[in-house]
Amino acid sequence: MGPGAVSPTLRDLGEFELIRQLTARFARTSDVLVGPGDDAAVLAAADGRVVVTTDLLLQGRHFRLDWSSGTDVGHKAAAQNLADVAAMGARPTGLFVGFAGPGQLDAAWALALADGLAAECARAGASVAGGDVSSADSIMLGVTALGDLAGRPPVLRSGARPGDVVVLAGPVGHAEAGLALLTAGRDGWEDLVAAHRRPRPPYRLGPVLAAAGATAMCDVSDGLAQDLGHIAAASGVRVEIRSAALEIGPRMRSAAAALGVDPLGWALAGGEDHSLVACLPPTVPPPAGCVPIGTVLLGDGVTVDGQPPAGPGGWNHFD
Amino acid sequence: MGPGAVSPTLRDLGEFELIRQLTARFARTSDVLVGPGDDAAVLAAADGRVVVTTDLLLQGRHFRLDWSSGTDVGHKAAAQNLADVAAMGARPTGLFVGFAGPGQLDAAWALALADGLAAECARAGASVAGGDVSSADSIMLGVTALGDLAGRPPVLRSGARPGDVVVLAGPVGHAEAGLALLTAGRDGWEDLVAAHRRPRPPYRLGPVLAAAGATAMCDVSDGLAQDLGHIAAASGVRVEIRSAALEIGPRMRSAAAALGVDPLGWALAGGEDHSLVACLPPTVPPPAGCVPIGTVLLGDGVTVDGQPPAGPGGWNHFD
Repeated sequence: MGPGAVSPTLRDLGEFELIRQLTARFARTSDVLVGPGDDAAVLAAADGRVVVTTDLLLQGRHFRLDWSSGTDVGHKAAAQNLADVAAMGARPTGLFVGFAGPGQLDAAWALALADGLAAECARAGASVAGGDVSSADSIMLGVTALGDLAGRPPVLRSGARPGDVVVLAGPVGHAEAGLALLTAGRDGWEDLVAAHRRPRPPYRLGPVLAAAGATAMCDVSDGLAQDLGHIAAASGVRVEIRSAALEIGPRMRSAAAALGVDPLGWALAGGEDHSLVACLPPTVPPPAGCVPIGTVLLGDGVTVDGQPPAGPGGWNHFD
Repeated sequence: MGPGAVSPTLRDLGEFELIRQLTARFARTSDVLVGPGDDAAVLAAADGRVVVTTDLLLQGRHFRLDWSSGTDVGHKAAAQNLADVAAMGARPTGLFVGFAGPGQLDAAWALALADGLAAECARAGASVAGGDVSSADSIMLGVTALGDLAGRPPVLRSGARPGDVVVLAGPVGHAEAGLALLTAGRDGWEDLVAAHRRPRPPYRLGPVLAAAGATAMCDVSDGLAQDLGHIAAASGVRVEIRSAALEIGPRMRSAAAALGVDPLGWALAGGEDHSLVACLPPTVPPPAGCVPIGTVLLGDGVTVDGQPPAGPGGWNHFD
């Protein structure tokens, strides 16, 4: 589609006009001291430390254009990085986004992506403070999120102690169920498909759990059993999950029945909900929004109702 | 190549072993409070602010496997981001790298990339503090660099004032000459080709120029004329370059003669040397390593010896 057409492409806009239209969509919070437009941005880091995480998202691997809109991809790209910041017990402050796409891509898709990034940042109290635009044969994103610890120590994976209670903030298995439904071409569970397209991490609970004294925390990106396995390995403990404590609602049950699978498998091995799972000393009441789902014990590995978890343990790239 | 073969692939190693071998190559400076292995890293930011910049590098667009080794690509990927940090007047502290590549890629290539990233970080006094690994059909990198302003204001593009002296730290046109030689398949100028493969930004001079009172600064990534055009536009001034002040050595001249081009074109429009160009008040003597190349005047745009620069102004993605 050439210049002057109704729906301009990235090539029609050109790099500098595209950047102008993208950055116009990004709110400027008080954490952003110097925003997009210079060699680099400057973010506030009043704590004297800064939490940083980065991820790549690739068309065809992490999202599909026929399953997710540009806005969906923006939400998801922001969410998975902002959730990592929250999982350290930090408040997300800034997002930085490298975007590459084909010259013939509708500029509207890229602008919708920016809208999704901006909206998800707003959910977390952060903003997009910088980025980079390039051309590529397919769409790819490099996303980096920063956060503020507000004087608290970061909550690592390595601090869980026998006797701690394992608590979960947010759903598990919903995104995986949504992906399975899309893969199977089944309609009727738009809520689960939405959980795949736009996970909604409980950002606020990251700092809340840290302030409550969480000894270990991570977000559920690879699957609950695998992510708790990381905590078990880093802390030198065993993590026991009570399957009856995992909330598997009627929508998950009906979707699983329709696909002939066990919904507990989605809950234990499904990634990408970006919920938060944390360990709390037994004397600490779980904050509102956090459900006890297990216990930290002497030993190693993860058990579910006393047994090793069945089936695939989660996601491994290159497999 | 399967498991147990002499040269394992990314798939042979698997994601977690690859990450282990990659991170083992990264030094841990005192700025890295929490390194790779958790949901996020924690970097020192004693200044209370942090400088952040991000870039994507894609195989076939930003580098070619037949022209650059993994180590070369690591040096270049780090350099172009660390230079952006230095161009704000900051000391680079940490690098975060998202890496994606095909499962059949030699793991040795990825480990050489890590060696290049680590070595270039060491040049700048920074270290690789975190990252992400994924699979993709071709190699892509999302690189984010952070830096410390040490109490100084950031040096933006917008502060140049009429009367300022324009100074250049580092070469211009060398990387472009090297790329032209590779494209033409001409041997004999390995020094210029090396400048393309591994630019060597003068990181240390970023904070030095800031401390000396630089009013504006950027790195030369798109080409000297275009990058000074950004300063001219942001500052509302005209920037006049004296072409005779640009050092065009015998190697540039002989390479240009061999290819039948004007070496001044490389110096004015060639990007990716990641040298630093800054504006200094006329009362400030240029620090060692910085060469006066022009003047800031009333007006707008960039002129070379009083005339608009000839030829293409620099690099624009999607063109």
